Amino acid sequence: MKKTILSIFIAAFAVTAYAQESIWADHLDISPIINEDCSATFRIKAPEAENVILVGDLAKEGNITLEKGEDGIWSWSSAPLETGIYSYLFVVDGVRTIDPDNTYVLRDVRSEFNFFIVERPGEKCPFVSGDVPHGDLAFRWYDCEGTGNERRLTVYTPAEYRKDKGRRFPVLYLLHGMGGDEEAWISLGRAVQILDNMIASGKAEPMIVVMPNGDPAWDAAPGNGDNGNHKPSFQGPCGDEKAFIDSFGEIVSFIDSNYRTIRKSSGRAIAGLSAGGGQTMRISKKFNRTFDYVGLFSASVKDFDGGEGFAEQFGEDPELYFIAIGKDDFLYQENVSLRKFLDEKGYRYEYMETEGGHTWANWRNYLTVFIGKIF
Amino acid sequence: MKKTILSIFIAAFAVTAYAQESIWADHLDISPIINEDCSATFRIKAPEAENVILVGDLAKEGNITLEKGEDGIWSWSSAPLETGIYSYLFVVDGVRTIDPDNTYVLRDVRSEFNFFIVERPGEKCPFVSGDVPHGDLAFRWYDCEGTGNERRLTVYTPAEYRKDKGRRFPVLYLLHGMGGDEEAWISLGRAVQILDNMIASGKAEPMIVVMPNGDPAWDAAPGNGDNGNHKPSFQGPCGDEKAFIDSFGEIVSFIDSNYRTIRKSSGRAIAGLSAGGGQTMRISKKFNRTFDYVGLFSASVKDFDGGEGFAEQFGEDPELYFIAIGKDDFLYQENVSLRKFLDEKGYRYEYMETEGGHTWANWRNYLTVFIGKIF
Repeated sequence: MKKTILSIFIAAFAVTAYAQESIWADHLDISPIINEDCSATFRIKAPEAENVILVGDLAKEGNITLEKGEDGIWSWSSAPLETGIYSYLFVVDGVRTIDPDNTYVLRDVRSEFNFFIVERPGEKCPFVSGDVPHGDLAFRWYDCEGTGNERRLTVYTPAEYRKDKGRRFPVLYLLHGMGGDEEAWISLGRAVQILDNMIASGKAEPMIVVMPNGDPAWDAAPGNGDNGNHKPSFQGPCGDEKAFIDSFGEIVSFIDSNYRTIRKSSGRAIAGLSAGGGQTMRISKKFNRTFDYVGLFSASVKDFDGGEGFAEQFGEDPELYFIAIGKDDFLYQENVSLRKFLDEKGYRYEYMETEGGHTWANWRNYLTVFIGKIF
Repeated sequence: MKKTILSIFIAAFAVTAYAQESIWADHLDISPIINEDCSATFRIKAPEAENVILVGDLAKEGNITLEKGEDGIWSWSSAPLETGIYSYLFVVDGVRTIDPDNTYVLRDVRSEFNFFIVERPGEKCPFVSGDVPHGDLAFRWYDCEGTGNERRLTVYTPAEYRKDKGRRFPVLYLLHGMGGDEEAWISLGRAVQILDNMIASGKAEPMIVVMPNGDPAWDAAPGNGDNGNHKPSFQGPCGDEKAFIDSFGEIVSFIDSNYRTIRKSSGRAIAGLSAGGGQTMRISKKFNRTFDYVGLFSASVKDFDGGEGFAEQFGEDPELYFIAIGKDDFLYQENVSLRKFLDEKGYRYEYMETEGGHTWANWRNYLTVFIGKIF
């Protein structure tokens, strides 16, 4: 039997020559190991290496060097960890390497890294939704006249949507940042799990969440429409960002005509992170009777269009204008300026300031807080 | 500006200490480079390495050793390549490493590898669907009484489905192999692109494709319902495979009540690869008036249940009973035995024998041929 399994493995991979030795035989059982005290033990087999470093969430104070064992396996154990989600990768003799024994890999812009989850006894990680009703996910294409192409977007519908087919639901439009795409919020942002949990616990209304691709230079995340030439970068959103913003009404129309939505401003929210926060500011001004709830997460709001358009938007106060940012965020000062402007004009907003900077840890947090306040 | 971009990058990754040097600054522009003659040049920066090997589709005759340049970048160029999709990864001093400069990464069971696409001038790769109408994709949960949990499945709906809302469509149920899940056919199998292209060129009927998770030990692909403890393996399908097979009618009911389907056997096909081919054989016997079209791709059909159930299934010949396998497949002999049995009984089937073995290259090919024959 073992031989059969091995044969399948070798053939399925089509990396025949090296497969047996490096891919199958070398697989450690589980990595990292979460110990009983919730510490994590990292291991990588690299008998020839001179130096192995761990980078990521646990290495914020500096690089962590693993220790080499006699079996050629390098290892390091952390202190006991809090419930949460953690990122990491190895650097083996200067070469970035994802953990070959960890199934869980994410891409951020152009780079892959591993993640793992810790759940302390009796606690539940808000980014895991194993035991609550699951929402569904769709990747859909819509014709966008404004940008002149078919574009891909992601739609989350809550479990209630498929269970109660007579009911209509409010919609949150949720935008990614530079170098991101329509998959960023569901992979890096754990939006599905956050929504599933918040809705199941009654802390958020069941809602549809629409995550468009906000970079007009591309129609979709890498690997979908393209032929391998998509190299995401921090230069984006490239292309004609104005075309994306000006045509945002097309997305709202597409969703309203394909889903059981509440088709008025009290049933619509929009939020975005970083560049997507800037887009949120602009879109919510341009379509100023479309969204009653607006969220700016670590938003890029440089000079905020000289204040143009705010008078119309705040003429009839939005139900919620929410601004969140971390103290160490490099966009902090831009947000100070925006708030100063809003204060001077007497435009009402809600402000949340956290520790940390321009990170997914903060954006997951802001999303959690924001969806608890809307609808 | 450059400094700002860099700051975003460092913060977003939360791999602060090492990020600047190893992740951002070290990114080569594009990898691999597809040259004008359609050869591919592979590069990886590893100044301290002693040995760098390329494995994958181009290294079938043995490992390929890269050459070290004075800049610490190892490189190797292939001969001109045919139009197609290619897999690879590096082994740096014995450690498996995905290409840190290639955005395109896939997981097969527990291991990640890179891929790239070649399109020769004037040719179109059948696994790229950039210029044809795109089908939509949904990940949905259904209540499965047979296995006692909510389970996730993937649904492809063709572009025609969203454009013609009065029309009903046939359904192909498409099953994965051992260690796979509901995402295997869309990632490794390029099913979306194959369907988009075949439908756009009129070579296949517009159809819905349903890709369930056929491993009852799990409810979904890693990272969805679980808390990080899902370690796919070639031991699967583990759990109660019989429960999955016996309850397959629940999937058909779920699809028929949620999509505009053609609700009779002439509007249904089922196919699967390897272990999923064995499931296909069993499901199409058990539900023997449900599917008019059956496809066994490199199917695991050991002792084919001693022949039980075939008489009922072939009592009224299926429109198509399609068996495909590669000459080098380790399951070849099992399929010889099955065909001998079918021949002796006079049960009609169609047979396709190809070069190669138990590979996704073959399964993508078999799917392409099969969908051209059904509905």
